[in-house]
Amino acid sequence: MKVTKYKKEDNISYTLGAFPTIELLKHKSKYVNNVYIHSSFKNIEVINKIKSLISENKIIYDDNIFLKLKEKDNTYVIATFTKFDSTINSSMNHILLDSISNMGNLGTIIRSCLGFNFKNIVLINSNIDIFDPKVIRSSMGSIFSVNIKKIASIDEYLIQYPTHHIYPFMLEAKNTLQNIKFKHELSSLVFGNESSGLDSLIYSRFDSIVISHSNNIDSLNITNAVSIALYEFNKQNLGENNYE
Amino acid sequence: MKVTKYKKEDNISYTLGAFPTIELLKHKSKYVNNVYIHSSFKNIEVINKIKSLISENKIIYDDNIFLKLKEKDNTYVIATFTKFDSTINSSMNHILLDSISNMGNLGTIIRSCLGFNFKNIVLINSNIDIFDPKVIRSSMGSIFSVNIKKIASIDEYLIQYPTHHIYPFMLEAKNTLQNIKFKHELSSLVFGNESSGLDSLIYSRFDSIVISHSNNIDSLNITNAVSIALYEFNKQNLGENNYE
Repeated sequence: MKVTKYKKEDNISYTLGAFPTIELLKHKSKYVNNVYIHSSFKNIEVINKIKSLISENKIIYDDNIFLKLKEKDNTYVIATFTKFDSTINSSMNHILLDSISNMGNLGTIIRSCLGFNFKNIVLINSNIDIFDPKVIRSSMGSIFSVNIKKIASIDEYLIQYPTHHIYPFMLEAKNTLQNIKFKHELSSLVFGNESSGLDSLIYSRFDSIVISHSNNIDSLNITNAVSIALYEFNKQNLGENNYE
Repeated sequence: MKVTKYKKEDNISYTLGAFPTIELLKHKSKYVNNVYIHSSFKNIEVINKIKSLISENKIIYDDNIFLKLKEKDNTYVIATFTKFDSTINSSMNHILLDSISNMGNLGTIIRSCLGFNFKNIVLINSNIDIFDPKVIRSSMGSIFSVNIKKIASIDEYLIQYPTHHIYPFMLEAKNTLQNIKFKHELSSLVFGNESSGLDSLIYSRFDSIVISHSNNIDSLNITNAVSIALYEFNKQNLGENNYE
């Protein structure tokens, strides 16, 4: 099969690097087409790990694909896979990202979400391509362990998930994260675009939250804001020993 | 004065974009050499802001410099400045970054530090160039409001700041951030390299902390980890209304 540089309209994508490839093989193996290993790659432990996760006949030793696809020099493993759909679990807490635009940020947020057990991520009003190799790389393969779905608007989301309590994070808000006591019910934490944030006309009707910070900066970086919010939410809701 | 693409050995550097330029003018104006405004830039509010912060004869309308220096298309303001030293305030809390290597991460961390009132940042064992335009850009100009200094080793740091309580953040740690009660005394929060973390041989003798997370990820992104730590530290130490 001919593999070419990623384009959004393709129905296959690929991982760049051993780490995300192993995550793909562990969690979405049935969608994997091939694993490519560069001839100069000699990490036997990693190669054996890959062999334990996929049948030998899908492993290809071919250096040409690396010239075509790699974006950094230290890429020695690539796996191609067929894009897949996932379903949001309606009985779990959700992260909603409204109009997020940066692929590196999305990947980093997915990694934090998985780290804090938020495995259901909804992209509202988004054109971002979740299968772009940049997203996969910055997620460090955590994208293969979460459910991600696009929904056109928050109103459409509310129709599908009417019992989730909506907490939009925005600079003009009713509560501070430092003071809020989260209700112990199904929750959706909502974050906006990197530059413009959430539209207050749409989101001010909900139980909005600001992460208080000094006036010396305009706002926190979005991946940092999401991570702080997940940390605080879990500290309150899951108790002290929740990750043990 | 001839301005060329940044090199580490130069004694001048530059901001790329109006936002970091205004931060430079507000906080480090005496080091500014010139401000360059592109002929297609028509934001009168920003231009007037710049004019209010620097004498008119230092403003140059020259499009050529943008061709040479800009890294993104939407750069219409550049300011050149002479590099400066800063002094760490020994009566404030510190952030220590040991062996950090990524310039974008450093800039993002500086922005979070300023947002959480940690204005004194020590780079331990670091070759990173804090005045690289990449650091300045990702800090969104917050680098001009903090003190940053390099110190060769943690032992040298301890000699200079013997009363600071050291809290290293590492995966194998004595405490979790979720459970620890910070002592109300001068503190230094220490973070390690993006890939390898902190050297446990050096840091396990201190009051180490892990930010508990699920086993589904290896570690949190370093900028997210720093931000979560600063959030929790301030919540405990500064009280609920500390940013008002």
